[in-house]
Amino acid sequence: MRENEFVEQLKLRFPVRDPVSTGIGDDGAVLTNADGSASVIVTDMLLDGVHFDLANCTPESVGRKAVAVNLSDLAAMGCGPVAAFVSIAVSGLAESSRLLQGICRGIQTMSEQFGFTVAGGDTNSWDGPFAVNVCMIGNPFGDRAILRSTAQPGDSVIVTGPLGGSLRSDRHLTFHPRLHVSRLLATSFDVHAMMDISDGLGIDLHRMMDASGTGSLLTADSIPIHDDVPTDWSQPKRLKAAMSDGEDFELLIALPSELTENAGRLVQEHAGSAMTVIGTVTKRRGCRMIDVDGSECDLAPSGWQHH
Amino acid sequence: MRENEFVEQLKLRFPVRDPVSTGIGDDGAVLTNADGSASVIVTDMLLDGVHFDLANCTPESVGRKAVAVNLSDLAAMGCGPVAAFVSIAVSGLAESSRLLQGICRGIQTMSEQFGFTVAGGDTNSWDGPFAVNVCMIGNPFGDRAILRSTAQPGDSVIVTGPLGGSLRSDRHLTFHPRLHVSRLLATSFDVHAMMDISDGLGIDLHRMMDASGTGSLLTADSIPIHDDVPTDWSQPKRLKAAMSDGEDFELLIALPSELTENAGRLVQEHAGSAMTVIGTVTKRRGCRMIDVDGSECDLAPSGWQHH
Repeated sequence: MRENEFVEQLKLRFPVRDPVSTGIGDDGAVLTNADGSASVIVTDMLLDGVHFDLANCTPESVGRKAVAVNLSDLAAMGCGPVAAFVSIAVSGLAESSRLLQGICRGIQTMSEQFGFTVAGGDTNSWDGPFAVNVCMIGNPFGDRAILRSTAQPGDSVIVTGPLGGSLRSDRHLTFHPRLHVSRLLATSFDVHAMMDISDGLGIDLHRMMDASGTGSLLTADSIPIHDDVPTDWSQPKRLKAAMSDGEDFELLIALPSELTENAGRLVQEHAGSAMTVIGTVTKRRGCRMIDVDGSECDLAPSGWQHH
Repeated sequence: MRENEFVEQLKLRFPVRDPVSTGIGDDGAVLTNADGSASVIVTDMLLDGVHFDLANCTPESVGRKAVAVNLSDLAAMGCGPVAAFVSIAVSGLAESSRLLQGICRGIQTMSEQFGFTVAGGDTNSWDGPFAVNVCMIGNPFGDRAILRSTAQPGDSVIVTGPLGGSLRSDRHLTFHPRLHVSRLLATSFDVHAMMDISDGLGIDLHRMMDASGTGSLLTADSIPIHDDVPTDWSQPKRLKAAMSDGEDFELLIALPSELTENAGRLVQEHAGSAMTVIGTVTKRRGCRMIDVDGSECDLAPSGWQHH
């Protein structure tokens, strides 16, 4: 059983029920409040040896990342953060004082930068490795949360930054969640679908298209490859890294094609970052790519899945 | 550093800010929605070898407990559940299929019984032991959430059931979160303060009194001791177990004394369980107890804290 299969089983076992309008399967859950406004809840668990290596990074960077991945999920839903809930497992509170203080400083820096507080949590000691779970609640920047399941044929497929090499360079610890870009887009444009690229474009694109009942056609040439991917690698190897390394935490967006120019200009002007059109949403299911040589190929799901 | 100290540090580092009105330090956080209604968020992390032992219990019972401890926190806040978010760390998804299915069945049973859904989560594999974090959102049964910090001198101190022996008997895996009692009280009476007894009456009572800026005087005679505490133990040993074993998940309540009779009758009639008055909230800080021999002694904090 892979992660995708398990998630599909969970969706059957736990169907949405009021006031939950979007449940398992998107970057976050959407709850409709009594007054019609929406709250969005996201959660991510980070584990030593999987998502970071405490032997080779600072506690601050771990606290930072634990929050940043959740902020990225909120950005993906077109939402800003309100409050975080942090659960921690350490081997001994007394022995872990330096670790805990560092984690808290990392979280505090993010809370001040992005304007939320930590409103609760749970602290436990055990014999196992360090683990941290963050759950965050947020509100839509615009008048609604943005889902991954509502891409439409003809939409442009857009990414908000270059991909690949994040783990190699430790960018996965220092990335800036795309809240600013999300707010600009959510408040000014009819964004059809959005998610964050956490497991790699190759698999996350499939997830968005499958959820939307659509497909997509990418142009290999147009996919922005991060400088963190060694430039002396062959083009196919560099492209593969961009498609499958994961932990990019850029936004993947489906936007009506007639809006892309204005949206790109706004984001460039106010967030100083580029929106790159990498393809088109198609009615035909499945993901395909036009390679640099002009040939069209099926794009197999690639990227990171827990096995 | 003990758990209480760490929590005090966190409260200073992460002060409440709108829309959070109650943050770190209560059973749950209270967020005020735009329409004035409240949402309450609780979270608990459960770890193999600490909160359960997978070698000696079923996966179903672990899933059940992971949700039940959060439901108990919601009950403590005078709230009913809306949605749960479940994060899991296992050693290999494929190898853990039976474990995961069992956990999910345990959660599903609770979701059907108490009327909520699972709306999100995170599944990870790693080399460490099994860990599960549940975060839940709920709404007040009455017109507000009930805090632990608003007990008033003269209030009766009440517990909703007998205490002690929960770990010895595995009751900590099978207990019924006191949502029904919470709803009866929250909708019919002006409950001053409430929390759940998770770490033991001896320490949780101190927490409520310290948070309220009050003290309390208990009568040792009146404290209900669970049958799970061996009856052939001496009275002092049995009382100590009731005060400090923890994982009782009964409610600890401060209620205006003139309401206790009616409240007790209502709860007995509609929930079939007893409310036991065990003492009185005092203006004088600190917790004291009138022992069976009539002598008054200070009640040192006792119970379970992570070190």
